[in-house]
Amino acid sequence: MTTLRKIKGGVTAPQGFLAAAISAGIKYPEGSRDDLALVAGTGPVLAAATFTTNRVKAAPVRVSMAHLKAKTARAVILNSGNANACTGGPGLADARRMTVATAQALGVRPEEILVCSTGRIGVPLPIERMAARIPALAARLDAKSSLPVAKAIMTSDTVPKEVAYEFVSAGKKFRIGGIAKGAGMIDPNMATMLSVITTDAALTRAGLRAALKTAVERSFNRITIDGDMSTNDTVILLASGTAGRPDPADFLATLEAVALDLAKKIVLDGEGVTRFIEVEVRGAKTTKDARLAAEAIANSTLTKCAWAGGDPNWGRIFDAAGYSGAKFDPDRTDIDYDKVPAVRGGMPAKTPFARLQAVAAKKAFKVTVDLHAGKATHTVFTTDLTEAYVRFNLGE
Amino acid sequence: MTTLRKIKGGVTAPQGFLAAAISAGIKYPEGSRDDLALVAGTGPVLAAATFTTNRVKAAPVRVSMAHLKAKTARAVILNSGNANACTGGPGLADARRMTVATAQALGVRPEEILVCSTGRIGVPLPIERMAARIPALAARLDAKSSLPVAKAIMTSDTVPKEVAYEFVSAGKKFRIGGIAKGAGMIDPNMATMLSVITTDAALTRAGLRAALKTAVERSFNRITIDGDMSTNDTVILLASGTAGRPDPADFLATLEAVALDLAKKIVLDGEGVTRFIEVEVRGAKTTKDARLAAEAIANSTLTKCAWAGGDPNWGRIFDAAGYSGAKFDPDRTDIDYDKVPAVRGGMPAKTPFARLQAVAAKKAFKVTVDLHAGKATHTVFTTDLTEAYVRFNLGE
Repeated sequence: MTTLRKIKGGVTAPQGFLAAAISAGIKYPEGSRDDLALVAGTGPVLAAATFTTNRVKAAPVRVSMAHLKAKTARAVILNSGNANACTGGPGLADARRMTVATAQALGVRPEEILVCSTGRIGVPLPIERMAARIPALAARLDAKSSLPVAKAIMTSDTVPKEVAYEFVSAGKKFRIGGIAKGAGMIDPNMATMLSVITTDAALTRAGLRAALKTAVERSFNRITIDGDMSTNDTVILLASGTAGRPDPADFLATLEAVALDLAKKIVLDGEGVTRFIEVEVRGAKTTKDARLAAEAIANSTLTKCAWAGGDPNWGRIFDAAGYSGAKFDPDRTDIDYDKVPAVRGGMPAKTPFARLQAVAAKKAFKVTVDLHAGKATHTVFTTDLTEAYVRFNLGE
Repeated sequence: MTTLRKIKGGVTAPQGFLAAAISAGIKYPEGSRDDLALVAGTGPVLAAATFTTNRVKAAPVRVSMAHLKAKTARAVILNSGNANACTGGPGLADARRMTVATAQALGVRPEEILVCSTGRIGVPLPIERMAARIPALAARLDAKSSLPVAKAIMTSDTVPKEVAYEFVSAGKKFRIGGIAKGAGMIDPNMATMLSVITTDAALTRAGLRAALKTAVERSFNRITIDGDMSTNDTVILLASGTAGRPDPADFLATLEAVALDLAKKIVLDGEGVTRFIEVEVRGAKTTKDARLAAEAIANSTLTKCAWAGGDPNWGRIFDAAGYSGAKFDPDRTDIDYDKVPAVRGGMPAKTPFARLQAVAAKKAFKVTVDLHAGKATHTVFTTDLTEAYVRFNLGE
């Protein structure tokens, strides 16, 4: 096991990366806030990415997927205020134009540029205005502007999200840093989760891809606020390689820490969220069963309403596990709030209700469901569902 | 096609059925409301039923499943105030005791009695008090007390639900009548949908089973308020056969009308519901795809919040279809609010937003999603998700 420690900064903490943000007036009046951002390598970098599995994929997702085939990448251009989704052929042309303008400003090929958008859907990008700002954006690139980028990509997020870790491996120091924006909804449209992670570690492209896939699986794919999955979700990992080769296991452990930190920040910043709940299903026959049960519990409207009210409602948890599709014997099931027994062998535990209430009244707690059907486990991070959430999402 | 018409009444509208309700003080003080009810044949009847597919099945569900194996049935005993769920071996014994006490009062065998419970979970039934009231309940049976039964099984329902239809087939008149209670949540626990349907038509048991399965599939299984599925859900069909044999197709058409009427009543009485929405997915490659997309749209927290706000948010609908697992080409997708185009070929239609808003402001409307991928269709009936719903379900 490597030693890793959290350090200050985000995507510019690792060597070989620059960042910049600028106002392009995409949704709000120009100058009122930054909404166009760039994260770039000082030279060519290796890239890996995971994208939404939604069949409806926004134009920038389609363009980035294609550009990932290039041998090296150079930068990611990002904007908020407009998701460039459900915009058809013109939207695809606009996403490509963002990469062309960025490539020109950096003196590289368009295929080396990845692109992310978040914000309103079904509205054409103000592409001329954006393209006109890209040279100035590129001219601003520096080794300290991670936070401005984290701020520029915010939509309904209330706080910018960045994190960086340093780890020691094979006698050398490495860094991994990241920014993210959250699963908040944008009037009048949808949630988007974006994250850019950078590292100075040298791995093969296959190594980067495998590590990112595993880390995302154990972090971003374990958070759920409302069970809705956006058309724009993207996580991009860029590696400059300037710090040399780490042990891949050490790299993965640190990458996971970065991704999990960002994922938790997203959950905690969810709309109207008042509680953070870790749902662990253990003792499942298969990992699939564990995941089915954990996700059903974490996405149950009823369970989440109960949590909003500080109600340790194990009946709704049990019910959600029951309809999840996971195979188990209800008469052997145990449920705990933190480590306080709520259900034993499918029946109410002899715990005084007030003790369960004391756990559910906390701002963060863990629900454990033991199916006693095997050895598989799965954990999901979720939130309560509040009246404020509904109010926020009533639309116009 | 048969001619069918709605008539007054519920489970006692068909010949050969009696009903009664009484107060047994199960949750509220005795005498404050009826909470124990009986629907009985004047002689032996044939029975068919569908139950929750939740792996966590309440004791009455398990007992009724076993008793359905008997050649004939005689009655259904029902209670509100306590779901007898998550009550282990003692709960099973209590459910059996309800059937034994009812059988004794009616002079039949316990296997001829089906049982339904709804209300709190994880709490033992006050079985002695209930058993003591069953003889008086049986003594009250008459041919007009359908509505008192519909009232006695209410939990968070705000109105009792009953309906009856008469149809003509093969030169004879037949009736099908039903009662139901809704998918409202009971503090501190879960939703339960119960329905008892009676008919004087004579069908084989296999014919009854097939008709009920189809009718439930097209009615109760198409409603969704919060996507949660209870441990107690039960639909029971009893046939006295006194009116003779109808054409099975005529019977099915009328049974479907009865079931759909009750299902819609349940949706309209959902907690905090302000809007009734029919979601039709058409042009799907397979029926499974149509169902996946329709259910994802109808259960999307975001979509339902938008509807609560009167927001014709097609982006959230499109997004939900995209992550549903249904296979389709987003660039060919059309979405309509009533018959007003919202999306054409994956892009915003040229409809003024105010026209879409006018539809979404209505109390009932239909959303149609055409995937243009095949010929399969599926329809789901759903509601909006309001702050009042959350408030109601905050728990204690």
